[in-house]
Amino acid sequence: MHDHTPCVDPSQLQSVYAPLAESIRRLIDVSIRTEAEPAAAAAARAKIDAAAAELGETAQPGPVGVRHMPDGGTIAWGNAVVGVRNPLAPPLVVHHDADGLVWSEFTLGAAYEGPPGHVHGGVCALVLDHVLGAAAHQPGRPAYTGTLTLRYRRPTALERPLRAQARVGRTEGVKAFVVGHLADQDGVTVEAEGVFIHPRQAPA
Amino acid sequence: MHDHTPCVDPSQLQSVYAPLAESIRRLIDVSIRTEAEPAAAAAARAKIDAAAAELGETAQPGPVGVRHMPDGGTIAWGNAVVGVRNPLAPPLVVHHDADGLVWSEFTLGAAYEGPPGHVHGGVCALVLDHVLGAAAHQPGRPAYTGTLTLRYRRPTALERPLRAQARVGRTEGVKAFVVGHLADQDGVTVEAEGVFIHPRQAPA
Repeated sequence: MHDHTPCVDPSQLQSVYAPLAESIRRLIDVSIRTEAEPAAAAAARAKIDAAAAELGETAQPGPVGVRHMPDGGTIAWGNAVVGVRNPLAPPLVVHHDADGLVWSEFTLGAAYEGPPGHVHGGVCALVLDHVLGAAAHQPGRPAYTGTLTLRYRRPTALERPLRAQARVGRTEGVKAFVVGHLADQDGVTVEAEGVFIHPRQAPA
Repeated sequence: MHDHTPCVDPSQLQSVYAPLAESIRRLIDVSIRTEAEPAAAAAARAKIDAAAAELGETAQPGPVGVRHMPDGGTIAWGNAVVGVRNPLAPPLVVHHDADGLVWSEFTLGAAYEGPPGHVHGGVCALVLDHVLGAAAHQPGRPAYTGTLTLRYRRPTALERPLRAQARVGRTEGVKAFVVGHLADQDGVTVEAEGVFIHPRQAPA
């Protein structure tokens, strides 16, 4: 399916595209919070439309998918949770400890709101699905979510340091049973359990 | 907590802020797919930073929360799933049928990607959490997610018409047991069950 996956130039990713996404993240945040008058909002919008037109001239059709790195690794730069090129992604940086613990620390702002002042419960689910999946992931053998169960213990506040973590509890054949949680500085806010499936063998 | 919730001018929401968010959604989409050269990306980024600076001059601190409408209703314009002012939100338009069925039809593009060409499993969870919660919601009595269980039956494709729907199966005291699913034109892709909690009485 991905015979012709384009190769990424890591220097351009870091110097050009990641800063572009970071600028758009700032724009998203202020655009939600602004009380700009109609004329000021229209002026800003004209700049945004001009930028989109410029970038659109060289936009490939369809989503980005996985790109190969020159070192043979892959990068999911458009991913909705970790994609450094995706302005929707916070983006999470996911760490893999030697003992199997997978974790990420981050803060979520106005764009992730559900109940007033709090992270949308579905955004908690989005983050936990990704971090639990990362715990189940094996090199060259991605894991797909089979089931995911979330228990919301209390609200998760916006604009406070958060931590998501997960580890594989056990495996049975192609299934990995993963447990994890989302926590703030006062403890766990959302607990998660997931069953992730490793397809037996991906086609070459 | 929300004594001084600002009142929204619906005409400005429709004429100024909703189009601004829509422009930023287009920008997000092309920014992920663009293959712009460094100079072109930098030129676009300068426009984006200028727009963010303009909007930032009148940005209130902190997230938006719920705003009151002149007709006495409320609107969650910053909400991560349905907020018309939130560029991260697709945004979903949620319909409530007389028989209790709650549903929304939408299409998700490159910004919502997980596995190549497919909706991130966590984005499916995000959408389903919201639609199941909307089914549990009662006027003036919001419902909070207690537990949410998702079963992923098959991948959900990007850029195809999708439908999420839910209804309350039964209630027990403050708990509403809700079932729903996400589907494409070939049938269900993700099944969901949730228990939503109505706080007994919100403070005036």
